[in-house]
Amino acid sequence: MGGDKAPGEIVAGAAQAARELGVHVVLVGRAADIGDSQGLEVIEAGEVIAMDEDPAQGVRRKKDSSLVRAAEAVRDGRASAMVSAGNTGATMASALLRMGRLPGVIRPAIATPIPRPGSHPSLLIDAGANAECTPAMLLQFAQMGAVYSSARYGVGQPSVALLSIGEEPTKGTPLVKEAHQAIAGAPGLRFLGNVEGRDLLPGAADVIVTDGFTGNVALKALEGALRFFMSTLGEVLGRDDATRAAAGALAPHLAPLAAEFDPDNTGGAMLLGVDGVCVISHGSSSARAVVSAVAVAHELATGGLVGRLADALSPAVA
Amino acid sequence: MGGDKAPGEIVAGAAQAARELGVHVVLVGRAADIGDSQGLEVIEAGEVIAMDEDPAQGVRRKKDSSLVRAAEAVRDGRASAMVSAGNTGATMASALLRMGRLPGVIRPAIATPIPRPGSHPSLLIDAGANAECTPAMLLQFAQMGAVYSSARYGVGQPSVALLSIGEEPTKGTPLVKEAHQAIAGAPGLRFLGNVEGRDLLPGAADVIVTDGFTGNVALKALEGALRFFMSTLGEVLGRDDATRAAAGALAPHLAPLAAEFDPDNTGGAMLLGVDGVCVISHGSSSARAVVSAVAVAHELATGGLVGRLADALSPAVA
Repeated sequence: MGGDKAPGEIVAGAAQAARELGVHVVLVGRAADIGDSQGLEVIEAGEVIAMDEDPAQGVRRKKDSSLVRAAEAVRDGRASAMVSAGNTGATMASALLRMGRLPGVIRPAIATPIPRPGSHPSLLIDAGANAECTPAMLLQFAQMGAVYSSARYGVGQPSVALLSIGEEPTKGTPLVKEAHQAIAGAPGLRFLGNVEGRDLLPGAADVIVTDGFTGNVALKALEGALRFFMSTLGEVLGRDDATRAAAGALAPHLAPLAAEFDPDNTGGAMLLGVDGVCVISHGSSSARAVVSAVAVAHELATGGLVGRLADALSPAVA
Repeated sequence: MGGDKAPGEIVAGAAQAARELGVHVVLVGRAADIGDSQGLEVIEAGEVIAMDEDPAQGVRRKKDSSLVRAAEAVRDGRASAMVSAGNTGATMASALLRMGRLPGVIRPAIATPIPRPGSHPSLLIDAGANAECTPAMLLQFAQMGAVYSSARYGVGQPSVALLSIGEEPTKGTPLVKEAHQAIAGAPGLRFLGNVEGRDLLPGAADVIVTDGFTGNVALKALEGALRFFMSTLGEVLGRDDATRAAAGALAPHLAPLAAEFDPDNTGGAMLLGVDGVCVISHGSSSARAVVSAVAVAHELATGGLVGRLADALSPAVA
């Protein structure tokens, strides 16, 4: 029921994913609103948490919402993963409250892929789940991000960097300085040290760690810059006959780049640290975005992501 | 003596500014390194703080450095403003220690222009002077930013926004939430509320307030994205005969945009809150960047920026 184009595009994408990927997809929501489920099983949920609703309140009050019921389906083993294009905060809260945290995890975090042309994406973690963080949380983000980069993109030994305002370990806030020491001292991580905002696009490391406030601001700054650049270029290309001819010549070269940066193709962000797979697709997800997200969710559920995360974190707890 | 192209480009830009703008420019540095000063007065300074040197140590140890001597020249009335393309941290420290703070200013901050095609730039403040901030500091950044936007771009009643991770006043860190209340309650500010990272380019307000850590990360993320787009587009335009022909058709349309985003043209960032005018030009400043920065410094010194800042801040102190 979530996302600006729900339920139409969501149902269409779910059906397409079931057909094309052979994944068993279950819809969660109001059967009456869903209409033709295209042969997919439906778990009835009578309430909807709106996109702009307060996440904590929504999850507390609407126990029969599609988000809460979807997280319960994963908890109860009726589903192996959940995918949502709905209210991000409410998706996180539902997953956290119903699936629970993995042992030792202080707080779950959102890992968002940043496209890197010619290579697999970088992962920015935390992209907005936790406005306030501790050094121990940032260390866990590094550990979870490395496992996820490996599970999702097959990276052997993912490189990890810490987002700061200078390369020197002495630069930044007390949080960043302490996190630097913690990550540098943790076994099993390939830590490159600090990187700066300019190292986000293209990503200077497989995993870039930051608190959820900075991560959210930086990610949205990149998204805004991308949108600005695309619309400016589009405006220039449409100015006159000569520029329209140029647009025709450039189209075959620009299209693959645009596709690489199209959020409908990235498969969505991942909530790491809960006891289940939870993929967060963007709010204006099309059917194609849902197919991408279902593909990622299926791959990670069958690949045992959650078990690998639990294994990676347990030494830090012991 | 500062900047990657010093002293050659710096001296050339200073001489050009003197010629073209009729500004009395004084060079500060090692006369032997400067060589032909092109008729400009030189204040001898025997030491240089390197671009990668620790700012606090550099300023403490090198009392005869060009940065410290330049700030002293402003303090002593031998100059009305200083311009530096050198070590940013050392520039701030020199200005702070030698010029001192304006009465009531908790900490000076850097205001950096973000180009806004078709309009005057937005100002991001603090772009990196203070990694740690308090709500009272963010309020002062809002007040100083509004005065500066007005003085620099002639904006009658500049709009002010606070950078956060959601538009609601309840979103963000405790710092942001408290700063929101403080700025909303301050008289004389046209406060639009919170904006997000995607509202930085193009800027959704004349002044966008944030702490120096977030501001530095966001600004460099934008710079990195811009560089990435430009180099990607340049690569596409050079691929074959057809794209090179397209490049020819687009060049007259893209050139003005590129010029608008060229940091050599923005006039540099401003350190607000010290008792003097201090313009910080970027590290790879060309002669043209120096001319822009000198023009801005001259205009603000003659326009009484420092007095207007002092006036705007005094009610907050009383």
